[in-house]
Amino acid sequence: MTVDPTGAPTTALLTDHYELTMLQAALAAGTAHRRSVFELFPRRLPEGRRYGVVAGVGRALDALERFRYDDAALAALREGEVVDGPTLDWLADYRFGGDVWGYAEGETYFPSSPLLVVEGTFAEAVLLETLLLSIYNHDSAIASAASRMTTAAAGRPCIEMGSRRTHEEAAVAAARAAYLAGFASSSNLAARQRYGVPTAGTSAHSFTLLHDSEADAFRAQVTSLGTGTTLLVDTWDVAEAVRLGVEVAGTGLGAVRLDSGDLGVLAVRVRAQLDELGATGTRIIVTSDLDEFAIAALRSAPVDAYGVGTELVTGSGHPTCGFVYKLVAREGADGTLQPVAKSSPDKASVGGRKYALRRRDAHGVAEAEVIGIGTPPRDDGDDRSLLVPLVRGGEVVGREPLEVARRRHLASREELPVAARSMSKGEPVIETLHVGD
Amino acid sequence: MTVDPTGAPTTALLTDHYELTMLQAALAAGTAHRRSVFELFPRRLPEGRRYGVVAGVGRALDALERFRYDDAALAALREGEVVDGPTLDWLADYRFGGDVWGYAEGETYFPSSPLLVVEGTFAEAVLLETLLLSIYNHDSAIASAASRMTTAAAGRPCIEMGSRRTHEEAAVAAARAAYLAGFASSSNLAARQRYGVPTAGTSAHSFTLLHDSEADAFRAQVTSLGTGTTLLVDTWDVAEAVRLGVEVAGTGLGAVRLDSGDLGVLAVRVRAQLDELGATGTRIIVTSDLDEFAIAALRSAPVDAYGVGTELVTGSGHPTCGFVYKLVAREGADGTLQPVAKSSPDKASVGGRKYALRRRDAHGVAEAEVIGIGTPPRDDGDDRSLLVPLVRGGEVVGREPLEVARRRHLASREELPVAARSMSKGEPVIETLHVGD
Repeated sequence: MTVDPTGAPTTALLTDHYELTMLQAALAAGTAHRRSVFELFPRRLPEGRRYGVVAGVGRALDALERFRYDDAALAALREGEVVDGPTLDWLADYRFGGDVWGYAEGETYFPSSPLLVVEGTFAEAVLLETLLLSIYNHDSAIASAASRMTTAAAGRPCIEMGSRRTHEEAAVAAARAAYLAGFASSSNLAARQRYGVPTAGTSAHSFTLLHDSEADAFRAQVTSLGTGTTLLVDTWDVAEAVRLGVEVAGTGLGAVRLDSGDLGVLAVRVRAQLDELGATGTRIIVTSDLDEFAIAALRSAPVDAYGVGTELVTGSGHPTCGFVYKLVAREGADGTLQPVAKSSPDKASVGGRKYALRRRDAHGVAEAEVIGIGTPPRDDGDDRSLLVPLVRGGEVVGREPLEVARRRHLASREELPVAARSMSKGEPVIETLHVGD
Repeated sequence: MTVDPTGAPTTALLTDHYELTMLQAALAAGTAHRRSVFELFPRRLPEGRRYGVVAGVGRALDALERFRYDDAALAALREGEVVDGPTLDWLADYRFGGDVWGYAEGETYFPSSPLLVVEGTFAEAVLLETLLLSIYNHDSAIASAASRMTTAAAGRPCIEMGSRRTHEEAAVAAARAAYLAGFASSSNLAARQRYGVPTAGTSAHSFTLLHDSEADAFRAQVTSLGTGTTLLVDTWDVAEAVRLGVEVAGTGLGAVRLDSGDLGVLAVRVRAQLDELGATGTRIIVTSDLDEFAIAALRSAPVDAYGVGTELVTGSGHPTCGFVYKLVAREGADGTLQPVAKSSPDKASVGGRKYALRRRDAHGVAEAEVIGIGTPPRDDGDDRSLLVPLVRGGEVVGREPLEVARRRHLASREELPVAARSMSKGEPVIETLHVGD
């Protein structure tokens, strides 16, 4: 049985063992089919962060459609004696048939924002826990870091180059999340193929070293890739390489890349040299362990673009968001939907189905994240509702082009108080209010 | 064209744009076919770490076999105008035909350890850069953290439960890497299916909340999963839940899980209560943001197993290893292989092909990482050679069962000086020596 006409593999084993054993026990107890509401939310922002960015929505919807137990998956579960026969039979027919609402992709978020509200039977909704959390926790961590970097870059393009520093598939998702949060392009070719993310590339030291001289390398690159190419100028002596680059490519040379040393100092020197040589339009691209702080520190330097790698794909100190997926309401023995919550000392949760809006003042500036418990909060006229339908009766209805999410992010960030643009540590820029119930 | 009979997708676009544009320029310049040696190595260990663990070897070999440009990949490159026609033609026939040597999976490593030596034409070897780095940087970061955790656990089993806190595919690789470094099991079902990693599961708060009472939930779980199951006892009152658990399951209850609060204090109380109830064999599993330090701190507590999530899958503060892939030698215009290196101020590299051995004293304790430049270092009689053949003439020869790598890791760690078992920050436990040239 192939679960997807494009041949994409099933996502149904990208989950935790206990989701399936809980399912088995609930099926046997007759509670598996109770109507349930799960919520995916952050308990807090990473320390010092002013806001977070929702990413992974589109990927989660794709993954949901491919969440089917094919023969190979069922065989693995059977051979491993993970669950019993009746549970395997139930899984063979599994298809999520419930409803999902959520924050639209690119939206900013705050502590307790109900990023996803999943309604279905316990059985069909609990199975999605691990996969939804994996996608949201990763992609949102990257987008949240990326948004700070594009803020710090203040309009200069950021290029995502971190694929080599993270898992090869995480790299593709990271490129997508970075683009969503304002990056201009990525080095990742699979992100181009799958998501239409623009890709760009310069060249590596190995290319220079391959040739018998730097001059040979530059000539080879310019001849094949055109004068608009980006030459890497720090293999040996930067000033000599810049001189050589302009000699080989002419004053129309596209760009030079600096990948080591004191980038601010070097950029000033290289700019002066390029200008003196008449290459006034040649751009300077800097790379080398940049994060949002290094980008901000280079604001006064004559830098034209930032290539960002490690710190982007590792979330700049916060590689995961810590989102959780909790049962907040379920049908009781009497058939009514009842709020539920645990009371563990350091992990208490708020029961009840949530609604959310972004409270804005008369100038459109965000003031608060208002979360309604059990009922939607009242819109004061300038507010903005945050939950949109993503899945209805099992059918994905929330798919949208990545460009739409990209524009949404910029608009949502623009709406925040100016403190959101600060790189320094601080509290979330707006407060979270729980109302109703 | 399907590149793999199992239907696994090609890995050839999990790479950076510039690898392909460099290829194009080198093909045009006639330098693409120069015999070249690339080396994958760490410049240093993450700050404070005493040793690192090589992981990802098996995954890299799998990925190498699937590194082919199929029609869809070529179409994406053509539509994106990433490279020119002659380069596309060359890519269509691409198949790595060179040789690869490397540290065996599970081996410990130190600064400058030549973890992979890739020899082939520049064209065929440069294309693998990004993918090899992605796999090694991720998997080794997880295994390096996992090894510290299993050391801290001092024989008590560690269970990997971090899937939800990392990218869904990174989660599978993380489960594999953790098992390799001594974890007993994982929650990740895809890791079971793909790599035979044992899986285990307990149950979530949602399962308790689904039911009308904790008693109903426990009865449902024990009835279906047997008395050997693990009951989650901190949804509300721990003491009451423990009492109830033994009442429902009897004194043969398998285990209880604590997921919040002061785990050390709670474990003592719960152990006393279980013993008093006669459930002397019931184990206590603790979870909740554990890292190697928290595990070590619980050494004196009556804990039977640790469930580790976030800190494992994020490398406990070091989510990537910072491995680089550098051209260290290549055929010159005269046909001889010549060492090459760049001299960037903060990123200088050592040219020349490398060999490596672990120098050991007469008691078999590791003393130094000896790296031969251009020629193998001399074995003093107690030493151990570190590079093994992984690929010969394009054919994978280094595949091995994961269990073999798991045993190798324990042996390699055991061989290190005792300071390797310290959780505190320090220098690498053995020094790296470069010899020869």
